[in-house]
Amino acid sequence: MKGRHVGGVGEFKLIRRLADIIGKPRGSRIVRAIGDDAAVYRTAPGRVHVVSTDAFADQYHFDARFYSWVDVGGKAMAASISDIAAMNAVPRYATVALALPPKFLVADAERIYEGLRLCAEQQDVDIIGGDTTRSDRVTLSITIIGEAAEQDVVYRDGGLPGDLLCVTGPLGAADIGLQLLRFEAESQSPPMAGLDEAIVRQAKDRHLRPMPRTDMVNRWKKAGVKPHALIDISDGLTAEVHHICRASGCGAAIDLAAVPVARAVRMLESDPARAMEFALSCGDEYELLFAAPAEDCARMDACLFTVIGRLTADAGAVFLRREEGDEVALGPGGHDHFAGP
Amino acid sequence: MKGRHVGGVGEFKLIRRLADIIGKPRGSRIVRAIGDDAAVYRTAPGRVHVVSTDAFADQYHFDARFYSWVDVGGKAMAASISDIAAMNAVPRYATVALALPPKFLVADAERIYEGLRLCAEQQDVDIIGGDTTRSDRVTLSITIIGEAAEQDVVYRDGGLPGDLLCVTGPLGAADIGLQLLRFEAESQSPPMAGLDEAIVRQAKDRHLRPMPRTDMVNRWKKAGVKPHALIDISDGLTAEVHHICRASGCGAAIDLAAVPVARAVRMLESDPARAMEFALSCGDEYELLFAAPAEDCARMDACLFTVIGRLTADAGAVFLRREEGDEVALGPGGHDHFAGP
Repeated sequence: MKGRHVGGVGEFKLIRRLADIIGKPRGSRIVRAIGDDAAVYRTAPGRVHVVSTDAFADQYHFDARFYSWVDVGGKAMAASISDIAAMNAVPRYATVALALPPKFLVADAERIYEGLRLCAEQQDVDIIGGDTTRSDRVTLSITIIGEAAEQDVVYRDGGLPGDLLCVTGPLGAADIGLQLLRFEAESQSPPMAGLDEAIVRQAKDRHLRPMPRTDMVNRWKKAGVKPHALIDISDGLTAEVHHICRASGCGAAIDLAAVPVARAVRMLESDPARAMEFALSCGDEYELLFAAPAEDCARMDACLFTVIGRLTADAGAVFLRREEGDEVALGPGGHDHFAGP
Repeated sequence: MKGRHVGGVGEFKLIRRLADIIGKPRGSRIVRAIGDDAAVYRTAPGRVHVVSTDAFADQYHFDARFYSWVDVGGKAMAASISDIAAMNAVPRYATVALALPPKFLVADAERIYEGLRLCAEQQDVDIIGGDTTRSDRVTLSITIIGEAAEQDVVYRDGGLPGDLLCVTGPLGAADIGLQLLRFEAESQSPPMAGLDEAIVRQAKDRHLRPMPRTDMVNRWKKAGVKPHALIDISDGLTAEVHHICRASGCGAAIDLAAVPVARAVRMLESDPARAMEFALSCGDEYELLFAAPAEDCARMDACLFTVIGRLTADAGAVFLRREEGDEVALGPGGHDHFAGP
């Protein structure tokens, strides 16, 4: 690794190397440190707080050509809150570090904050602190603190062979929305003629204004269900299935026909193979992926999620079962913020 | 304000404008939100957590020409922890968002983390989470979570007329250290001949490797003292006196002769007026400024702090009493990260 650039090793490997330097936490009330969507520490007997920090930079996480500044703030907050939902915890507090170029307009900084506030309010989160600094590039770092009963927290490593693998929401629309937004920005023209305007708007909204699935935390509670493993699919479904499998020491078999492809994808992408590719690898979509026993899944409203396959005992092996009946190995793929814009 | 740039309004005004957008917090367990060194929320009856987020950017907060990457990490962590000490709370957990240019060396990223870890370990803080992202400029955002009994937390707004105004540590060395470091970096030569090497090293260390004064939290506890108002002087003594005065609705009278000028400043700056200027306005020094009744100050080891004056009832008026017996008004001054490098 000597002389290697961070751009050459990839984000996940870099994070692992940095986590190695930190080593094991020493505080006796830390339940879980680096390695999941958020860290967990005890605040009182049986009660924990869950904390996560995320960074968002212009051009890497959003594109100022087609994001309004309100959308930038809203999406950064939504993505950050999603990490807390992905632990089955309730988000409560946020702090924001905002780095801005000196020539950035005060009015636009205020718009970023309006977006932050709108999303936070919607999710019942209070922004309680922050800092501003100078930078060449608009960058936000958001820390969210959530809370839960210690026994309710779900990690990515609790999956068991035989668990059903489930996702919320239809998938893929955020990436097709991004492609439409990019096309419009680059061609300086409205999208291709003949496209359904409502569908186009829906796909764009899905990319620009995602909603974290904090509602699922309540729904699981009401149904008396605690998933075995849980993660958000911000890096794309395939990558996140691998994350659960690696952490849980399982494999997975996914039924291609079961993967819920968003209507916008089916309408805007006529090639079914490419449409499926959107659904499998779409990043920046803040749905939840969870593993739970069939009897638990049966106790929940079936409209809330889709069973896409199951965990297997074959550690690390992720297979896609195609309609033809054959199986293909599915690599991790996923998004890497150092790999290029 | 329409059309104004963030570089033109100043950091404090910008933060106030952004805080206005957020409005009052709604969570019932929030004791204090934006406006102090850290926010405070209840975790159990009588117990609170204290959280603060700080951002550090290359060239604005540190200068890669003369900071080692270990020092960058160490200082960012120290400065962040200082905000928790400035609430009279004990720092416990840290999260780190690290933005790096793609060509940044993995080995240097690891050094930043070594610096973060060394300082965190020394302060008994666990780094429990983080994120990495791409940027043009090395930028760190650190969130620290500390804890305290609710009744022990000290804010900047509790000062009362008649309170003694006290500071820890001799002041000014960090800025003279910075000047020496800049001189060496720009002239590509060792410092001016004839300077005492140990003193030069001390001044540089004071800038590069500050220590947060978390020790004071224990010392106050042991002495059974709770200051009325407390702040760290990272923006310089004069600015922070104004912060306490504004928040507490007081004025202040400072005895110029009492201000503790660091030995390194006295030895390296022969003009006494300029030496005093260093002590009064030196930023990036993580000592604590507090206001407490004389009887409380009398119960503490006098070696730990210096009484520099007292709070007055004349709201907003900060005066410097010179040895000649006359008084001069002292403006807020202080550091502003948007005002230029």
